[in-house]
Amino acid sequence: MSVIVVGTMAFDAIETPFGKTDRIVGGSATYVAYAAGNFVQPIQQVSIIGYDFPQEELAELKRRGVQLEGVEVVKDKKSFFWSGKYHLDMNSRDTLVTDLNVLADFNPVVPDSYQGAEFLMLGNLDPVIQVKVIQQLKTRPRLIVMDTMNFWMDIKMKELQDVLKLVDVLMVNDSEARQLSGEFSLVRAAKKIMTMGPKFLIIKKGEHGALLFHKNEVFYAPALPLEEVFDPTGAGDTFAGGFIGHLAKTKDISFNNMKTAIIVGSAMASYCVEKFGPDRLREINKADIDTRIQQFVELVNFDIELV
Amino acid sequence: MSVIVVGTMAFDAIETPFGKTDRIVGGSATYVAYAAGNFVQPIQQVSIIGYDFPQEELAELKRRGVQLEGVEVVKDKKSFFWSGKYHLDMNSRDTLVTDLNVLADFNPVVPDSYQGAEFLMLGNLDPVIQVKVIQQLKTRPRLIVMDTMNFWMDIKMKELQDVLKLVDVLMVNDSEARQLSGEFSLVRAAKKIMTMGPKFLIIKKGEHGALLFHKNEVFYAPALPLEEVFDPTGAGDTFAGGFIGHLAKTKDISFNNMKTAIIVGSAMASYCVEKFGPDRLREINKADIDTRIQQFVELVNFDIELV
Repeated sequence: MSVIVVGTMAFDAIETPFGKTDRIVGGSATYVAYAAGNFVQPIQQVSIIGYDFPQEELAELKRRGVQLEGVEVVKDKKSFFWSGKYHLDMNSRDTLVTDLNVLADFNPVVPDSYQGAEFLMLGNLDPVIQVKVIQQLKTRPRLIVMDTMNFWMDIKMKELQDVLKLVDVLMVNDSEARQLSGEFSLVRAAKKIMTMGPKFLIIKKGEHGALLFHKNEVFYAPALPLEEVFDPTGAGDTFAGGFIGHLAKTKDISFNNMKTAIIVGSAMASYCVEKFGPDRLREINKADIDTRIQQFVELVNFDIELV
Repeated sequence: MSVIVVGTMAFDAIETPFGKTDRIVGGSATYVAYAAGNFVQPIQQVSIIGYDFPQEELAELKRRGVQLEGVEVVKDKKSFFWSGKYHLDMNSRDTLVTDLNVLADFNPVVPDSYQGAEFLMLGNLDPVIQVKVIQQLKTRPRLIVMDTMNFWMDIKMKELQDVLKLVDVLMVNDSEARQLSGEFSLVRAAKKIMTMGPKFLIIKKGEHGALLFHKNEVFYAPALPLEEVFDPTGAGDTFAGGFIGHLAKTKDISFNNMKTAIIVGSAMASYCVEKFGPDRLREINKADIDTRIQQFVELVNFDIELV
């Protein structure tokens, strides 16, 4: 069982109310790989990096079952760089710097060795690039999960709608769901978005948890109430990694199993935010993950008694 | 098993994006009584009304097991009147009119026939009035639940802190929890508030559900994702009514049973918002309530599988 992950591998410089970092490793595909690798291997990475991306980081990813044949290395350019500063509420942030660098030339090539993967995770990227990956796959994966953001709705809505027709699961946050659908009610927004292509929709609400919609069904996954969110960078990608990792591990893409996958993704994301960048994801082991999942069970568990 | 409910019985005029009402019946104690009466009777009301409060409404409440000996009727004054307009997101509203009328003279007297009640629900009111009710009770109720709002934190924080020392459960919304504690993190806010008196804290987050804190434990109750919130007026009081109604019915004030009580309260609140004022609460029966509680079970239920 293999999972193809498409996204950025990059550097971030992050400032939060709790501190700031110099350039540290980040990127959507990095976070997805760190999270998903706990559940399934190999993770087949499709990305692009410059000469400056650390060899130790690549070695660590390989050690975790991440294949890098699909990661293009550009010898004379730098890796994608993003710098941002979070506001006190940690729900909003200002972008300080965006240096596309190698990302401007990203023209993904899926290696032959990746063909036949049953799961595809399309990280947030230009929808034109997302389509290119899908088109290169000779056999359609059993499940295609896609992340995107408001930026692409602003400037490439038509292209975004084209990708939507090709995917099974879309992940967006609440304001993106509203923007994409033109509906304020999330229930109405979900119904509309599910006519655009995806059969499943996950609406991420940060500290308020996440909703999973499918046909007329809905599931509400809480977020773990945390004393401190140290750095939210990568939390959404980590959630995606836990989600698709659990599905690939269990080979079950039913609505019912997606509920569990969302809890797994939420557990992984709750670790991610405890330290800067992917630091915390590097530390945790399977016992830690089990402990956290058990906390989610206790968080929502109640005895029912009818009137 | 009886429950004393203290709060307003009043008139509201409401404008939402979906429509507007003339003067209709409202008030915190009215909503609490409508909700709690489904679970336990008698409800022993403590409130004040003017000559204009409709006799048919009082008759309907009596029919639902609500005792009115503690409701003072002022012959020459009007009932409390509030008018407000909700914004599109339904989470914020502007107050258009507040006519205190009889409420300016409210000096609650607990009738002898109410003495010995095991449960007390203090609706949102001047903390000075809330204290007066507690002081009149010859035997302390097994459980005192209290609602309040930012208004009292702004102008009567000292008096509010005095009531807090006397109650078991406090209900506030997220911004009120932050204001009361001076902490942004809700987990930290909860810890601090639980040193002020209440052993249990419920933080209401509207469409994002509610959190219950007790010692080091936490429970997350989702809100039902609704296609339309028609009118949120009274939802918090209806939640409180379902909560204390379930506890009084089951005579179990453990943390574990409070989780279920929050689900019951959330189910009642989800009905309340479907029509203007208490209209929907008048229509529903026990089967409707069971159906809605079952929806909450399905909303959060997932199969766990450890890594």
